[in-house]
This record gives sequence, structure tokens and C-alpha cells, in this order.
Amino acid sequence: MVTVRVKLKSSAPPRYDIQIGHGLLLRLGSLVKSVAPSPACGIISDQTVAPFYLAAAVDSLRQTGFRVTSYVFRAGESSKNLSTSSAAIDAFLTARLERSSPVIALGGGVVGDLAGFVSAVLLRGLPLIQVPTSLLAMVDSSVGGKVGVDHAMGKNLIGAFHQPRLVITDVAVLRTLPDVELRCGLAECIKHGIIKDRTLFDFIAANLEKIHQRAPDVLSRLVARNVRIKAAIVMQDPFENGPRALLNLGHTFGHALEAVAGYTGLRHGEAVALGIIAASRLGLKRKLIAVAQVQKIQSLIAAVGLPVCLSSLDVDAAFSAMHSDKKVHNAWLRFILPTTIGKARIVSGIPESQIKDALESLTL
Amino acid sequence: MVTVRVKLKSSAPPRYDIQIGHGLLLRLGSLVKSVAPSPACGIISDQTVAPFYLAAAVDSLRQTGFRVTSYVFRAGESSKNLSTSSAAIDAFLTARLERSSPVIALGGGVVGDLAGFVSAVLLRGLPLIQVPTSLLAMVDSSVGGKVGVDHAMGKNLIGAFHQPRLVITDVAVLRTLPDVELRCGLAECIKHGIIKDRTLFDFIAANLEKIHQRAPDVLSRLVARNVRIKAAIVMQDPFENGPRALLNLGHTFGHALEAVAGYTGLRHGEAVALGIIAASRLGLKRKLIAVAQVQKIQSLIAAVGLPVCLSSLDVDAAFSAMHSDKKVHNAWLRFILPTTIGKARIVSGIPESQIKDALESLTL
Repeated sequence: MVTVRVKLKSSAPPRYDIQIGHGLLLRLGSLVKSVAPSPACGIISDQTVAPFYLAAAVDSLRQTGFRVTSYVFRAGESSKNLSTSSAAIDAFLTARLERSSPVIALGGGVVGDLAGFVSAVLLRGLPLIQVPTSLLAMVDSSVGGKVGVDHAMGKNLIGAFHQPRLVITDVAVLRTLPDVELRCGLAECIKHGIIKDRTLFDFIAANLEKIHQRAPDVLSRLVARNVRIKAAIVMQDPFENGPRALLNLGHTFGHALEAVAGYTGLRHGEAVALGIIAASRLGLKRKLIAVAQVQKIQSLIAAVGLPVCLSSLDVDAAFSAMHSDKKVHNAWLRFILPTTIGKARIVSGIPESQIKDALESLTL
Repeated sequence: MVTVRVKLKSSAPPRYDIQIGHGLLLRLGSLVKSVAPSPACGIISDQTVAPFYLAAAVDSLRQTGFRVTSYVFRAGESSKNLSTSSAAIDAFLTARLERSSPVIALGGGVVGDLAGFVSAVLLRGLPLIQVPTSLLAMVDSSVGGKVGVDHAMGKNLIGAFHQPRLVITDVAVLRTLPDVELRCGLAECIKHGIIKDRTLFDFIAANLEKIHQRAPDVLSRLVARNVRIKAAIVMQDPFENGPRALLNLGHTFGHALEAVAGYTGLRHGEAVALGIIAASRLGLKRKLIAVAQVQKIQSLIAAVGLPVCLSSLDVDAAFSAMHSDKKVHNAWLRFILPTTIGKARIVSGIPESQIKDALESLTL
């Protein structure tokens, strides 16, 4: 037997900037051109965001010389699938995008995940520019390079790691974000506070009213602090082999709740909020966290206006849905459990009964 | 404006072995287990290869403790699309493959490309094991990490760079490879000889009869020498930014010929053979290569039994098809042209008329 060993050269690790400010959307063309010069670009947006911001984005890009092709799809998680991706790919290939052509994600988390997946696989990878328009996308999904689409068997089961070339975060667009979506973004902010940053947790609690009023300076500080946490964790662990798992606090429970709700009954942020509560109670059960800390977590989630309980839940179905989540490791579920506000750890080997009890507690 | 810079840690560059020998398929289970231990694995094969080798592969994997799920599709380039990928993904998710579960590509180039794409995007990336069963897949497509599927607008327009964890090349399986497929593999071997290795070119010319008789020692030497060339180029340039472009000798013409033939009239190896002839003649026209060298190239291609001309060709359609190829660079086509047997270079800025003349010459 002959063995030929292939050892690839180490490529330069990706680096990119996240720019956070007011009115950046009006400078979109020059910002994109500075990192991804090309004769052409593609924009992906959805029918909720496009009426507000697509025309301005296209204008700015055209003024800097880009030939622009837009693909707009029906808003919502139910569009985040291979079939929508395929339609966007059709549009961009017809428009003759090239390997240098950036794909711009203009929208919330669903748009970013889907546009990210399209940019990852089209022509084996095009530069991705994230322009998040929801709080959730700004503080979470636009940073870190996880892109993908859903499958009937679960969320984000098809995807890639594809880092953006640039993230352009214009907090001015939060002005048009519906309250319910603002609250969903706050679920991820609270998550960041719980796993890494007690000061952030307290900042959210102290500024709830200003956040809901969309006070620009408070929003900028909120977004920047969250982005720094997310970026620091991603930098340590780009492929989710270690510490990045902390970001899944509330998500193993949350994804299961979304799955049994069929992706329509419950928003992602709402599911994460409930998931954080379930994880906190599981931590309490296992004596990892004090009851006062769990109460503080529940109080802030309630104060934000996020759900803290469900009217009913098929616990067995939710438990079963957890096992199709892609983070299943050697057939054992791993959970992120808070140990205090500002710290969390990875725990596996938890008995089925305790997991089901935590799910059950959400209906009380 | 606040800027947060994300700089990812450099991850260890991928390395993997290509094992070449006789009878390796019988040891498949232990070879796979040594690089990708997991409770489960998936195999993708096609209806041509599966009747010969699938049962043996599954047996070997089961004996080493893998739970095995197979997905077999209708053979041929026309199956290499998103829809087949999606069906394979359905099968593997239903079988609850996990992030550690290897996906094994058992077949020729189409199987390897499609299984590679599935492994690249399923759960954001599973370990890929290439088990090439055609000469073309052994010497070319199984090495290098380019995976993908076709789109109505062109070949391999959707894909990724996803390096295999291991390549298991059992030359014993070439026994059942149809002659026409053996010839197609030889087109890529001749290409390697022209761009990098005059000795290989001469070895093929001197051993044509033994190759056609499937003499085991000659086939092993042939495969190993080709794999070393391909591996050396891939190691230098994993993402096809520089020297790897040399491997495209004959491919810009070839893909266009395949596209106008609708992916069914012409095999890839046949199209590459014709593409090498067109590129050689274009090199001659531009005084880059001597006429005697071009004649030697044409003679070997003819001696192998590969086509050296077409009965008819829509030159305008073929020229147009070149522009939807993903290698279009700033709207300019780049060609790999041989300068002698053993060396080639990248040339761009060639006038349309010369490109069309080279295409036209194939019908003479």
C-alpha cells in the first residue's frame, strides 16, 4: 500500500470588522466596496424589511458602481429552507454574479442565515456582508459565521461556517423594528449577560424603558457590548468545539420548543427566553445555582415582556425533538446551565427525568 | 461609529492520507473507524457502482460496529444537483447521523462531488471519506476538497471546499470499470502529464496496452504518480487562488462543451480531452508551444481512444457558456495553455476570435 499525505498550507485566519453606528445604511455602497470591490453584487432581503430599506440600499450600492440584483422572499422562518436558497441562487446565477461579487444580507436573523448559506455555497463561496436590521441579528446571528437553513427534522440542520467579510450595524433601523422583535433580541442580550457579563445583565435591567423607547445612545451601548461578548467567544472558538457552546444557553430547550410549535407558534427569542428559564431551573435542581439568581433571571425576562410559561406543552415530543438537534454528542445531550448571573458551564449526562421536569415546569 | 474587530484564531490546517492499494475495500470499516470513530455512518453510492461494491462496504463497516445508512441514486451527471443532495440529507437526518458521523462516497466523480457536498453542509460539516471507484475519481476528483453540484446554468456552480478525512483508493475495483470510463480517467492523467510531468506523459504512452488490460502494478504506479501531482498542487493552493488553476487545463473549453451538450452527450473526460486539444491549438496560435508538441498531445489522446474532434458544434453557444463558468474573473476568461509537455501557464485577455477559432477547429 502506498500512502500519500496531503497537508494543506495554513491559510490566513479570517478577520473582519463589525461597524456599529447611526445612518451607516446610507453609506452602504462605499462600505461594501472597501472590502469587496466587484462589478456586481446581490442583496437578499425579505418582504418585511425590503419596503423600508431595500431601495436606499440599492441606491447607495448603484451610486458606487455596483450592478445590483435583489432577491426578496416571504418573511419568516418557514422560508429558511433549501428551496428558497435554490431560488436565490437561480437569481444570482442568472445575473452572472462572479466569485468576487458580495452577497449582502439585509434583514433579521432569518435573512442573515439564509443569505449566509447562499453566499457559502454559490460558486463555492462569495464574500458575505451582513446588514442586520433586527436587534437579534445585530447582537447574535450576524456575528460568528454560522449560516444555514432549516430541515423538516430541525432548525439549521443544513449549513456551513462562513465568516462575513464585514458586518454593518446601523442602529437607526431599530426605529422600525416591532416591539415583539425588540423583545426577542433582548432574550439573546440577557443570555449574554447570564453567561459572561453581570454588568450587561444589570444594564439591561436598569435601562428597560429607554431601550423600549429606542433611545439611540442606549441602543448603541447595548449593541456594542453584546457584540463584543459574542465576538470574543467566536474568536476563541470559531468552529464551536469548546467555549462557544456557552452561547447555546437556552437553545437546546428553545430549539425543541420551536420544533414542537412547528416553527410558527413561537418566535426564536421567545423560545430562547423559555429555554433560559428551563435551563436555570435545571441548574437549580442540580444545585449549580442559587434560587435568588434564578428568580432574578425570571424577573428580568418577565419585565422585558418575554414569555415565562406556556399554556401547554407536549413534553415527550419536545424531549424527542432535542435528540434531532445537531449538537447531540455521542447520543448524549449537553446542556449549558448558569451557575450565577455572569457564569455558566457545560453539563452532560443529565437523567431524562430531570430534563423532562424542566420542560414540564414551563407549563406551570 | 464603533468598530469591533473579529480576528479568528488560526485553526490547524487540514491533513489527510490518500491510501492506494489492492483490496482496501475489504478493510473499509477499520480504515474509516481509525479516522472517524462514531456510532453511525452514511454511504452515498449510485446505481452503477452499488451492485458491485455496496454490500461489501456495508458489511465491513457493520463488522467494525457502525450503524450504516445507504443512499443510492441514479447514476450520471444529471443526478448531481440540489434535489438529489436534499434527498440524501433527508435519509441521513432520518437515520440520526451526528456531527461525528462520517459520510462515505463510494463511486466515481459524480458520487464524490455530491457526497462531498452533502457532507459539507449536513449539520454544518461531517467527516468525508472518499472511496473512489473510477480512475478519474482516483487521480482527480477525490483529492483536493472541491465538492459541489451542478445548476442548470453550469457545472459545479453550487459547492464548497471540504477536505476529506481520508481517501481510500482500491485499484482492484478498476477491474469492473467500463473501458470508456477508463479512457475518461486517462484524460485527466494526460492533463497532469502535460502541466507538470513529462515522465508521466511518456509512461502513459509506453504502457497503454497494460493500462487497458488493467495490469495491477501499472495501474498502481499510474494512480500513485497522478495523486502525488494533484496533492502537491492542492497543498500549495487549497482554495484555487493561484497555481491550482493549472489543473483547469482543458476544463474551460471542456465545461463549455459539456454545457452545450446538455451534460449528457459528452462525458467529462471526453470533454476534457477535446478541451486539451483546443487549448493546445490556442497555445500554438499564440506561439506559446511548438507544433511537434501539439502533435504529440493529439496523438496520445487519439491512441487512448478519446475523441479528438466533434461532428458539429454550436461555437457561439459554447463561447457563451464559458461566461457562466464560475472561474470568470472580472468578466475576462483565463485559459491554461501548455507551453511544452510538462509545463503550462495561465493566459488571460485572449481575443474572442481566437477562442472561437480554437472551438471551431474541433469540428474539422
